[in-house]
Amino acid sequence: MLLIAFYIAITAEAMTAALAAGRRNMDWFGVCLIACVTALGGGTLRDILLDHYPLVWVENPYVLLLVCGAALLTIPLARLVDRLKWPFLLLDALGLVVFTVIGCNIGIEAGVHPIIVIVAGMVTGTAGGILRDVLCNDIPLIFQGELYATVSMITGIIYFAGLGAGVPIDLMVIASIIIGFGLRSLALVLKWEMPKFVYDRDMRK
Amino acid sequence: MLLIAFYIAITAEAMTAALAAGRRNMDWFGVCLIACVTALGGGTLRDILLDHYPLVWVENPYVLLLVCGAALLTIPLARLVDRLKWPFLLLDALGLVVFTVIGCNIGIEAGVHPIIVIVAGMVTGTAGGILRDVLCNDIPLIFQGELYATVSMITGIIYFAGLGAGVPIDLMVIASIIIGFGLRSLALVLKWEMPKFVYDRDMRK
Amino acid sequence: MLLIAFYIAITAEAMTAALAAGRRNMDWFGVCLIACVTALGGGTLRDILLDHYPLVWVENPYVLLLVCGAALLTIPLARLVDRLKWPFLLLDALGLVVFTVIGCNIGIEAGVHPIIVIVAGMVTGTAGGILRDVLCNDIPLIFQGELYATVSMITGIIYFAGLGAGVPIDLMVIASIIIGFGLRSLALVLKWEMPKFVYDRDMRK
Repeated sequence: MLLIAFYIAITAEAMTAALAAGRRNMDWFGVCLIACVTALGGGTLRDILLDHYPLVWVENPYVLLLVCGAALLTIPLARLVDRLKWPFLLLDALGLVVFTVIGCNIGIEAGVHPIIVIVAGMVTGTAGGILRDVLCNDIPLIFQGELYATVSMITGIIYFAGLGAGVPIDLMVIASIIIGFGLRSLALVLKWEMPKFVYDRDMRK
Repeated sequence: MLLIAFYIAITAEAMTAALAAGRRNMDWFGVCLIACVTALGGGTLRDILLDHYPLVWVENPYVLLLVCGAALLTIPLARLVDRLKWPFLLLDALGLVVFTVIGCNIGIEAGVHPIIVIVAGMVTGTAGGILRDVLCNDIPLIFQGELYATVSMITGIIYFAGLGAGVPIDLMVIASIIIGFGLRSLALVLKWEMPKFVYDRDMRK
Repeated sequence: MLLIAFYIAITAEAMTAALAAGRRNMDWFGVCLIACVTALGGGTLRDILLDHYPLVWVENPYVLLLVCGAALLTIPLARLVDRLKWPFLLLDALGLVVFTVIGCNIGIEAGVHPIIVIVAGMVTGTAGGILRDVLCNDIPLIFQGELYATVSMITGIIYFAGLGAGVPIDLMVIASIIIGFGLRSLALVLKWEMPKFVYDRDMRK
């Protein structure tokens, strides 16, 4: 089930990334690259940081074809995809929590410290979007106050704490995804925001 | 022969990268760093993704000196190098196909899936320029429609397919370089462009 | 002693990074991430390039908590930290040379070529600031003429040459830190600058 959710999530991330590339008038190759970086960059960075080889898409290159196919398919369907803003926001929320749970699992397998398990989940869930924004030459969106990385952190903590408390893994996967997805959806609907650190150097003058 | 072409290519890439750094008024250290990242960044990223250690320049640090030397030499020669725009465009085209073939060879040695062999070639050929543009705070040039990554992909496919068909490796190296170089040169002369995905959010209004 | 200096240095780097994040109105998560990347990014990149695992903060995750704690503490103290500009510039100088010496040690342990030992020191000392500026969407400050990477290089060369000449390691650590710190402080006070490569494409017209 986690695997099916993973494929749905990378497809959705590839499609929204393609739109971001289109807004910057990139060519088809740029569209594919931005889609790959967004959909697979988080897991790739996690595996490099944990020395966990081979990378997911090196072992199973068909995910690259899936991501590029979804991205290229978005080009003729751009107006439709953009009109489906809410379904895609929800798919993106699903991706965030699914990626987080997968990242925590990799961290647990690698036998790292609990803090690093949570960090592995957060890197998997959020680094793809950060890399996308760096390549598109934006200040990463994720730092602008949306409750995004926080949802990833909370999902990871709940998942890891549940496993530590002896809850069966299948149950914990489902519970964390429901809680994380619900939290992210609520944050979207209610426009919850992280507090910002607005520091103007001239403030003290 | 591939080795000689490799040295010519990294020297040429270092010199054009130095010009890019000079346009942003960087200091001498910045010039060297941008040159190293552009000339060696593609191979470095490929080796990190494939877990292929030690890195080329860690094993043979003299390539670092070559790249930095070429970059610093470009400073007094800037007007000359810029006037030699066409020779450098052609050397850059040579670098693109040589890097691609070298990257495919590393992928084949590592025993990865054919798709990843092509990807290894493309990363080697194109990632240096992308990293240069990220450090110079530009949207990567490669996404703006030039037939660049596509040439790398086609060169890689021809090279790998030829080897698979039993053509001797020396012959395939020469053939792929000639085809890839010719294709890139034609693209430059005839101003061939990749189709772009121009997506304006306000289009539908 | 090197360890204590390391903790002081990452704390100081985390606090100045938090101010940089605050100037861009990032949220608390962004503040923590920028602080982690600035304080730990150099060592992380060095370890990835040298295939030296596990990473420092994966093995000892409490440095992550220290960095995030220092960054979050900076938020209420922002005016104070900013007023302490000189102490922080000096702590940053200390960090630069301490990181460089630590990076050289890792390079020596890994048994790499002397050139790569110096490069390992420079990457450790300077890459964190470069990554911070990329994430904040600036052209890296380090390329703008300050005597920063050069100090790191000189410190590394003195340290490695001293060890090679048979000077005891404890003495060399202290000597390199004093020389490097003195050099950086002088550069700050006397506003020494690296020569720049100012290349205006229109110059020749």
